[in-house]
Amino acid sequence: MGGTLYGVGIGPGDPELMTLKAARIIGAAPVIAFFCKAGRPGHARQIADGHLNPAAELLRLEYPFTTELSLEDPRYLAEIGLFYDAAAIQVGERLIAGQDVAVICEGDPFFYGSFMYLFDRLRQAHKTEVIPGITGMGGCWTRAHAPITHGDDVLTVLPGTLSAEAMAARLAGADAAVIMKVGRNLPKIRAALATAGLAERAIYVERGTMAEERIMALSEMTEAVAPYFALVLVPGRQRAR
Amino acid sequence: MGGTLYGVGIGPGDPELMTLKAARIIGAAPVIAFFCKAGRPGHARQIADGHLNPAAELLRLEYPFTTELSLEDPRYLAEIGLFYDAAAIQVGERLIAGQDVAVICEGDPFFYGSFMYLFDRLRQAHKTEVIPGITGMGGCWTRAHAPITHGDDVLTVLPGTLSAEAMAARLAGADAAVIMKVGRNLPKIRAALATAGLAERAIYVERGTMAEERIMALSEMTEAVAPYFALVLVPGRQRAR
Repeated sequence: MGGTLYGVGIGPGDPELMTLKAARIIGAAPVIAFFCKAGRPGHARQIADGHLNPAAELLRLEYPFTTELSLEDPRYLAEIGLFYDAAAIQVGERLIAGQDVAVICEGDPFFYGSFMYLFDRLRQAHKTEVIPGITGMGGCWTRAHAPITHGDDVLTVLPGTLSAEAMAARLAGADAAVIMKVGRNLPKIRAALATAGLAERAIYVERGTMAEERIMALSEMTEAVAPYFALVLVPGRQRAR
Repeated sequence: MGGTLYGVGIGPGDPELMTLKAARIIGAAPVIAFFCKAGRPGHARQIADGHLNPAAELLRLEYPFTTELSLEDPRYLAEIGLFYDAAAIQVGERLIAGQDVAVICEGDPFFYGSFMYLFDRLRQAHKTEVIPGITGMGGCWTRAHAPITHGDDVLTVLPGTLSAEAMAARLAGADAAVIMKVGRNLPKIRAALATAGLAERAIYVERGTMAEERIMALSEMTEAVAPYFALVLVPGRQRAR
């Protein structure tokens, strides 16, 4: 009778945007695990703080890197794999002891999340349940008052880490788009949007739903670098009125 | 001192997947409005039922069509526009009288939702706030235990109403995909996925997160027609392990 592994999406930043189910599970779980950087409180932890079972063990899963390595770097793939192996062992020990473990995840656990690597390692041996969360992009488009897709729109979601050429090719012909992982990729994103003829419709959203939120037309965002938690939205075209 | 118009996403079907904020707003609003078909209870209404302010006025906004007209049909565009005009007048009267109105929306109000047409008509004259909801696709990919995007994956979301050629073109080169509005488009969707070389990875999800949920490999779904509330998921490819 082992414990259950829960992957709990806690939403884009405003704690009130977690689901009733997420709040119930993290309010009762004996172990709350979360990914974080060394020396940092952990973003998911900060969002969920007021809703965590006060008696829970807090299990930090600290990333081994302090700088961003490219996803294509062989050292990255090797080291991150070992890190997830070690994290899965820590979580698995609690599950074997019969404790439920809730892994809290910003946004949605299965949408560009780290949780899936734990899930892959533990799903065969343990009972698992995943609770969807409001994605960062969903929080951003509602806060920007920008309906993203209408009728038969095609939506393309892509990371700003792509090359400018690949990005422009993916954007060509998209009705609506969301560009994630903005950060230092902002100049490249601007260029790709201009090539695809979408620059005028683009909206920049930084830390959507959080206290420090900033929302503006991308053309008004004059800084060269944005935080990692920024998005660019290209709302679809409305045909019906 | 007019009322506030709230567009409240109430999620994919399981009532526990609405956010804390959605539950707070619909538990207190004096008017709850929802889109529905004539003679039907309304899908959003059914999901939210246990959480609605029991003293609220329930305002039905009944679609004028009982059969699906094409979005391109000029009659559709004209009639649906008049319908939204009339709905906005009904909602606007309550706002002018100082009442808050919560329009409850399946999934997310700004992701293929009808709410945006009310929003467009009322946002200039009234205070508005939109509460994001878990999308149908988010509910489906977590229930299917299918992490949808990893690392630098590009996600394409498209409606099954596109032509087979357009669909195959959009799917070509996508890392991950979600196909909405399956219904009678299922044979066409199968063909487009085969052309794009994605048929083997495709998962069929019907009524995700609801009691009648069905999840299977698309290749195992032998019926020719699916409900409108079905999705096809093509999970991305995982590079890191």
